[in-house]
Amino acid sequence: MTAVWTAIRTKRMVRVFADRPLAPEHVSQIVDAGRHAGSSKNTQRWDFVVVEERATLQRLASVGPFASHVAGAAAAVGLVTPDPRAPRASLSLVWDAGLAAENMMLAAWELGVGSCPATVYEQPLAREILGYPEDRWCGYVLSFGYPADPEDLTRPPKAGGRRPLADVLHRERW
Amino acid sequence: MTAVWTAIRTKRMVRVFADRPLAPEHVSQIVDAGRHAGSSKNTQRWDFVVVEERATLQRLASVGPFASHVAGAAAAVGLVTPDPRAPRASLSLVWDAGLAAENMMLAAWELGVGSCPATVYEQPLAREILGYPEDRWCGYVLSFGYPADPEDLTRPPKAGGRRPLADVLHRERW
Repeated sequence: MTAVWTAIRTKRMVRVFADRPLAPEHVSQIVDAGRHAGSSKNTQRWDFVVVEERATLQRLASVGPFASHVAGAAAAVGLVTPDPRAPRASLSLVWDAGLAAENMMLAAWELGVGSCPATVYEQPLAREILGYPEDRWCGYVLSFGYPADPEDLTRPPKAGGRRPLADVLHRERW
Repeated sequence: MTAVWTAIRTKRMVRVFADRPLAPEHVSQIVDAGRHAGSSKNTQRWDFVVVEERATLQRLASVGPFASHVAGAAAAVGLVTPDPRAPRASLSLVWDAGLAAENMMLAAWELGVGSCPATVYEQPLAREILGYPEDRWCGYVLSFGYPADPEDLTRPPKAGGRRPLADVLHRERW
């Protein structure tokens, strides 16, 4: 049983997507994977706004300087939480959203669906497009779609794409 | 191929661990899974401090009010990043750490290893124990170990443990 490890090892960022919608059951399963993530004291302080309309995806691509891939995605998921920058708010809102996002991206990968996160820089624009309340915040949007190049799903990882294990791993103490 | 989905669906928090060390190859693979996570512009601004000495684990259990499970873990991984609360720092440091953490916890689950995150509230104490530099921050520690109750690994998910999909999922707009 090494499928999880294989997914982790082979998953790559996909920013160029095939021009066809996701199967509805794939959309549901991806979001459901996010829903199943653990969260601080199981508070689940997240909502997921799924966008599949092309015109809306194209608008969403303007929420940040590195979000252009959203325009061509089959679906985007906006992760909406209470605002972690508010007084007394916890950074765990962002941490928990990351846990949920990785679940979604790994579940997608198993379904043959590529993904890429985009950081939201233009909060008012994201709010206008996604319609979430004033007390919420959308820090990240995930693009999903079948890769334009299906070989993305099976290509061996690029050499040098990650810092070596010996560099990131410290034993007992830094 | 549904192993990733199954891992996501069945993984539960494990806070009570068997009193035996992790196989060395399990420790390596768990940390390696974190290393393979995607990160903002592939910056990989993380380091992982792995603790397996019992006395150190017991000290680490004091870094926060909900960290007591660390004392009995077989291993703990401190996720160390630049300080996201520093001026001009990005919240993506925390988001990226969450992506890496979920990779580690899912990879662990596939190996029969349970896990639970703990938020670090006592930054100076965590720094003293883990020895990371002044310009770094350890927001979270993950406990790992074989579950004291092996049935944790196969038990069906608790009903009502997560908000319903219809509650968290918004279509096109909040």
